[in-house]
Amino acid sequence: MSRDQPEPTVRDVSDWWATSVSRVEPDRIELRGHPVQDLIGSMSFAGIIWLMLRGETATPGQERLLEAALVSSVDHGPHAPSIAVARMAATCGIGLNNAVATGVNLLGDVHGGAGEQCMALLDDVRRLHRDGVGLAVAAETTVASWRARSRYLPGFGHRFHSVDPRRDPLLGQVERAVADRVVDGSYLRAAHAVERVLAEGRARPVPINIDGCTAVVYAELGFPPPLARGLFVLSRSVGILAHAWEETGQGRRNKGPMPPSILPTFTDGA
Amino acid sequence: MSRDQPEPTVRDVSDWWATSVSRVEPDRIELRGHPVQDLIGSMSFAGIIWLMLRGETATPGQERLLEAALVSSVDHGPHAPSIAVARMAATCGIGLNNAVATGVNLLGDVHGGAGEQCMALLDDVRRLHRDGVGLAVAAETTVASWRARSRYLPGFGHRFHSVDPRRDPLLGQVERAVADRVVDGSYLRAAHAVERVLAEGRARPVPINIDGCTAVVYAELGFPPPLARGLFVLSRSVGILAHAWEETGQGRRNKGPMPPSILPTFTDGA
Amino acid sequence: MSRDQPEPTVRDVSDWWATSVSRVEPDRIELRGHPVQDLIGSMSFAGIIWLMLRGETATPGQERLLEAALVSSVDHGPHAPSIAVARMAATCGIGLNNAVATGVNLLGDVHGGAGEQCMALLDDVRRLHRDGVGLAVAAETTVASWRARSRYLPGFGHRFHSVDPRRDPLLGQVERAVADRVVDGSYLRAAHAVERVLAEGRARPVPINIDGCTAVVYAELGFPPPLARGLFVLSRSVGILAHAWEETGQGRRNKGPMPPSILPTFTDGA
Amino acid sequence: MSRDQPEPTVRDVSDWWATSVSRVEPDRIELRGHPVQDLIGSMSFAGIIWLMLRGETATPGQERLLEAALVSSVDHGPHAPSIAVARMAATCGIGLNNAVATGVNLLGDVHGGAGEQCMALLDDVRRLHRDGVGLAVAAETTVASWRARSRYLPGFGHRFHSVDPRRDPLLGQVERAVADRVVDGSYLRAAHAVERVLAEGRARPVPINIDGCTAVVYAELGFPPPLARGLFVLSRSVGILAHAWEETGQGRRNKGPMPPSILPTFTDGA
Repeated sequence: MSRDQPEPTVRDVSDWWATSVSRVEPDRIELRGHPVQDLIGSMSFAGIIWLMLRGETATPGQERLLEAALVSSVDHGPHAPSIAVARMAATCGIGLNNAVATGVNLLGDVHGGAGEQCMALLDDVRRLHRDGVGLAVAAETTVASWRARSRYLPGFGHRFHSVDPRRDPLLGQVERAVADRVVDGSYLRAAHAVERVLAEGRARPVPINIDGCTAVVYAELGFPPPLARGLFVLSRSVGILAHAWEETGQGRRNKGPMPPSILPTFTDGA
Repeated sequence: MSRDQPEPTVRDVSDWWATSVSRVEPDRIELRGHPVQDLIGSMSFAGIIWLMLRGETATPGQERLLEAALVSSVDHGPHAPSIAVARMAATCGIGLNNAVATGVNLLGDVHGGAGEQCMALLDDVRRLHRDGVGLAVAAETTVASWRARSRYLPGFGHRFHSVDPRRDPLLGQVERAVADRVVDGSYLRAAHAVERVLAEGRARPVPINIDGCTAVVYAELGFPPPLARGLFVLSRSVGILAHAWEETGQGRRNKGPMPPSILPTFTDGA
Repeated sequence: MSRDQPEPTVRDVSDWWATSVSRVEPDRIELRGHPVQDLIGSMSFAGIIWLMLRGETATPGQERLLEAALVSSVDHGPHAPSIAVARMAATCGIGLNNAVATGVNLLGDVHGGAGEQCMALLDDVRRLHRDGVGLAVAAETTVASWRARSRYLPGFGHRFHSVDPRRDPLLGQVERAVADRVVDGSYLRAAHAVERVLAEGRARPVPINIDGCTAVVYAELGFPPPLARGLFVLSRSVGILAHAWEETGQGRRNKGPMPPSILPTFTDGA
Repeated sequence: MSRDQPEPTVRDVSDWWATSVSRVEPDRIELRGHPVQDLIGSMSFAGIIWLMLRGETATPGQERLLEAALVSSVDHGPHAPSIAVARMAATCGIGLNNAVATGVNLLGDVHGGAGEQCMALLDDVRRLHRDGVGLAVAAETTVASWRARSRYLPGFGHRFHSVDPRRDPLLGQVERAVADRVVDGSYLRAAHAVERVLAEGRARPVPINIDGCTAVVYAELGFPPPLARGLFVLSRSVGILAHAWEETGQGRRNKGPMPPSILPTFTDGA
């Protein structure tokens, strides 16, 4: 920035925006090195998600497992903040893309970040185990250490479901992928070990929830933890869009969280 | 809202958020009437997109065609505003979901809305033709009428490509779907008729672009025009995420549009 | 873009981002031509808003009137979608800036755009009147013409208040500014004329609402209509921030629109 | 949530949205307990910001100091990511509010969060000093401890300015407020002590920057650290709006980070 630096060039500018994700020239578009015309018609939507994020092509087994996780978390009803705000946004006279963006903006550390954090937790278990600690002890130690930091154990338990209906089918897909040698199963074993620790001496177990199940999938598939949130964003965008679109068709204007009939009383408690 | 209305009830509140998209009860999640466990492992990601937006299950032919369109528009490089802002956002210390939301927020009438507008244009051609006007005249009349309103004809021509490399493979998929009786081809024929009008007496033709091609796909598949933008949002979110994630790995902070070396001169022209 | 265009230069790049709003060089910041150090301590926050948007300095009378409008619309309670979504966002583990952005994103054509539309309506009345039509007839004609297009008359009536408590003090400020010759009062007179048209033969009049009052202020002060929404954004951001911040202090996580106790029943109606 | 909980009531719903920020009933609006009509015309925009965030009325001295900080950070040119993305957003066919939201969304930990972090740093200095450590040693200890954690010391140094032109006038306002007994000056003294530590044995000092200066102001005025970012959001929104509005007037469509003439070369480096 100082005045005696070499003169900047146009090349400096184009380098500033260099990328290995895509290459666009007149009459030519490459995605991760593949001409786009080679992908259209031959690659699935889940397949291009893998290609764009990983830089290489998924095997059929990897793609099937990714697909299962993406399907599982598209929606959790309009009481989920991401869905509710998108529906409200859709009544305020903004574009459908703005309504979707509003919902996606809420998928933060608390709403969408549990998968990312759960991957870190499972990594702790695996690391201890790889260093020679038995799996049960590795899980117990990790749970104790995480509990000391926070009362929420990311990926386990649900405020709503006793057993999340998405748990069994999703973990079943992971088991199948282990049997097919698509993934090695170490994150799955770590998750089960944590579940056992949480079930000990409890009337009500604390089973792995959807964030935990998808964390297992994404970790087994080799995605780095922040992409657990990224993939959740792609998945939940589908539900956000479906709800925003349904709301659009209902014609409400400026939809608030409660029906207008309740408004007059609502600040009494303040 | 007046004071002599009947007392509001809790049922009024739950009705305020009623939806036919999903149903969530303890230990039970239904998406468009399907228990989620029946979908995980058996449905593709494109399939669940169709189900959530349409309320029914796609046929394999419909799903293949939808998939081709979703794959085609994931990315158009970092000079696309949606991609550029997501990369800049990723350097500002916000969540990956916030960076994606920033990009999606830009997919408005000008950036992502051309497909929606092109569907309306093609509908005009089809309507005239259905009323007995020859296809060539229907296209000519429609182009003249749209040209009178705006100098941009949505879905045709590109500031960058002479022929968009995504045009042929995508329209090829539509042709195949027509041959397989998945769709009836009336939007495809309307688009070709418009292309011919735009080529007449011109040195440089104005071929259908990616917005136009995807508009043909989504219209043939029976999606209402606003969902052309909605589906573009789902598709482009993949590229936005891939770019934001790549930028995250490069460690820049507060990335501006130009390299810092160019800053000192840039307001001279103001 | 063709290959025989002249080589681009660095100057092309800096020109691409040229602006007359601000000038930033090492050790020097100018806002609309004023060194920033001359503004700090001498200019009010409302004053800098005027300077940045208009390019020149407000008179004390202009600033006082702008200030009254900015104060009037900071908040309308948590049933306003913009406020509700910001509160929900604040519980999802995203930054306070992301929560504010979420709220601002909802201030669209329906939620924040009425002021902009009302300025256009009042302009129609003024134009007819300037062309020699009596004010009452000009108002009647304009109302009839707008009513033909939409059942909402922007800036008049409120679904909640019979007389908006902000109406009298805000219009009182405009009257004072007319008396002080700060503004000429033509928009105020147009608004009163519309109110009279709407009161004729009605049990319940349809008085000018807050969007209409602020539209009168901003129009009298010479702001173009889109900035009516822009100024509303600056004003409402204050309430959005205050609510998001209060919610942050309450420690909820993933706040939905209804208390969790109501969730199990809420999709019954779907 | 379990099925044997007491039936939820409408009161539960209104309590869910209870707030002490504002109270809205038919024909009545109170902001922090003040009828809105008492504020319009008598309170400045900076004054209502204080009232809404703090719950009480500012003294004239407090208001003047807050105003100086709000004025100082409205804009830092279009190379600031928040400004650049808002300008790009304004060319994509979305509302002016959506363009502002896009810019505000970027004011995260790295772009807007330094003030918040700097308040924590200055608090560390003050705490040590209050515990009996000399101010110079308290500053030195704190700097060493922060340096061990990160190579960025929030609030000090600028990649662009050697001395930020906003530093002297803003700290001058704090000194005046100390002289007037509006604030006690302990954060100002802590900041100066840190500056001295950073100047020792250096050719180029690392003076307090705008984030640091505003942190001093907000801390002296008793705002909690997260509101340093909140107030920065309100201030920078002014510049974001002014730039988005200017861009709107220039008629570009889909503005990318570089002029189109540079596009063909730009991915060469990828």
